[in-house]
Amino acid sequence: MKKREQTIILKKQPKIIGFYSIVGPKEGEGNFGPYFDYVMKNDCFGEDTFEKAERKMLETALTGVIQKAKLSPKDIDVMIAGDLLNQIISSSYAARAFEFPFIGVYGACSTMAESMAVASVLIDGGYCENIVCCTGSHFSTAERQYRFPLELGNQRPPTSQWTVTGAGSCILSLKGEGPRITSVTFGRVVDWGVNDVNDMGAAMAPAAKDTMLNHFKNTKTKPEDYDLIVTGDLGKLGSEILIDLMDEEGFTLGVNYCDCGQMYFKREQETLCGGSGAGCCATVFNSYIMKKFKDGQYKKILFMPTGALLSTTSSQQGDTVPGVCHAIVIEA
Amino acid sequence: MKKREQTIILKKQPKIIGFYSIVGPKEGEGNFGPYFDYVMKNDCFGEDTFEKAERKMLETALTGVIQKAKLSPKDIDVMIAGDLLNQIISSSYAARAFEFPFIGVYGACSTMAESMAVASVLIDGGYCENIVCCTGSHFSTAERQYRFPLELGNQRPPTSQWTVTGAGSCILSLKGEGPRITSVTFGRVVDWGVNDVNDMGAAMAPAAKDTMLNHFKNTKTKPEDYDLIVTGDLGKLGSEILIDLMDEEGFTLGVNYCDCGQMYFKREQETLCGGSGAGCCATVFNSYIMKKFKDGQYKKILFMPTGALLSTTSSQQGDTVPGVCHAIVIEA
Repeated sequence: MKKREQTIILKKQPKIIGFYSIVGPKEGEGNFGPYFDYVMKNDCFGEDTFEKAERKMLETALTGVIQKAKLSPKDIDVMIAGDLLNQIISSSYAARAFEFPFIGVYGACSTMAESMAVASVLIDGGYCENIVCCTGSHFSTAERQYRFPLELGNQRPPTSQWTVTGAGSCILSLKGEGPRITSVTFGRVVDWGVNDVNDMGAAMAPAAKDTMLNHFKNTKTKPEDYDLIVTGDLGKLGSEILIDLMDEEGFTLGVNYCDCGQMYFKREQETLCGGSGAGCCATVFNSYIMKKFKDGQYKKILFMPTGALLSTTSSQQGDTVPGVCHAIVIEA
Repeated sequence: MKKREQTIILKKQPKIIGFYSIVGPKEGEGNFGPYFDYVMKNDCFGEDTFEKAERKMLETALTGVIQKAKLSPKDIDVMIAGDLLNQIISSSYAARAFEFPFIGVYGACSTMAESMAVASVLIDGGYCENIVCCTGSHFSTAERQYRFPLELGNQRPPTSQWTVTGAGSCILSLKGEGPRITSVTFGRVVDWGVNDVNDMGAAMAPAAKDTMLNHFKNTKTKPEDYDLIVTGDLGKLGSEILIDLMDEEGFTLGVNYCDCGQMYFKREQETLCGGSGAGCCATVFNSYIMKKFKDGQYKKILFMPTGALLSTTSSQQGDTVPGVCHAIVIEA
């Protein structure tokens, strides 16, 4: 009986030949502000509902990345996307606008990595030439769907994170120039029994640990081998938990470790534990991180978005919050 | 500039080495009753909520298919699954029970084909050995989430379909015996402006036409080349629309064409336009269709589940209903 090997080593190593990010005004004022392609003037983006604004962000990210990669929509073989809204409507309706063959995925805030991992395999195996990956989230649609209508003005507990309003996209291909995806690790669903829906960082940290340990073991690497190890949106608390969990396993996450959610906003923006949402790591990756690759500052990174796989129904029925984390290695 | 080619021809042709289906009592009394592995005594399946019953169906389908394929959970490299509940919780929580590396997908009622198509590529390319695909739906969770609580006793319009309570699963591998998957076609998102959420068949038929035309063109085949062409759950009305649409394009869908939704229930079961839901074609495929392959009655079929990519939010905001259809060719 064979032993399960979670890490897939890619032979042809698909390249990231284009990237694009669009964010809301609050995000534009955050720490990554100067790196985004487009900062919206307001959260409505000219639409009459926040949900339609979210969809328009994804459409903008798709148009933007195709232009930046100097391709036409007809060059795209498949679009792989997902988002936080019920039935991933932002992605489906965005796919409709382009008539792309569409693979809808759901991995909560890990969606950027999930879509890139599936795309990597499709391209590495020679099944597709160009694949566009896209995801996003919107503070106001997420609050309405997962928590409370904004009009109620509910207080936020100190462990809560702020759903990023933004969308990120990238194009993977064997042709063209860009950093290469060299391996992917699909994560397992891990649940340590956290039932506080305002503490997603604690719920997802065990999944990040599981995938990270698996990845290090399978690839025979250690934290020092990467210029950057970046988790999705564990936030301030979750990333501290991950550092502790990895420390117990004998791995020290040092100055090369960071978390997109933790870094996203400035202290005075009062987001408590930091950013979250599928758009969080999607916009950081497809702006700041990719530009650092372009500038030659990164040679090899480990990108590990995490997702909390709950719904309002599961919470109402007393379920705890499972997490998942997919890992991708990107090399210059 | 290259022309987009939607159909992927598989070189190694992954085999379907195991299949399993579990359904509710009403489904057990339907036309496929004798073919299912397990018929539940009631829709609650020993759980205190319908949502937990749905999850338990998926877990049962996973355990069942792994046993039937004479494998252990450790032999499974990846689980690819999705369902109709918000944030695909049935699939995520089922994945948690097995600690499988998990790729969550969403394609509404096309999910069985979407998961099998992604799995085919992962196996064909040599990235995984055994992948389990799974999906399901539950009448009572779908009514509660998408329509009205059952307690209201709302009337059903004549175009409506009945969400199947059931889950189906299969295992794809290069080792072992079973029919082979020889090509997959990822569908585009197509929307012809249907805005009646009680007429999903009409909304999805254009997507089925689009994928079918694409598939015939790319593979240079015609309807007569298949022992069976089976759509997911267009139902009575939707499948008649598809026959008309294909007729306009010069393709006659004859006696070898059928629709899982249309065939699922007996006339006296009063399901109006027939069955629907991700569990509809998943349970027909992983029982009746696979057994016909085993018995040598099918040599080559075209499996085309369709999905309606709406949410209650998109409907409430006046959006029309986009459809998608993924196609898979299976040969003995």
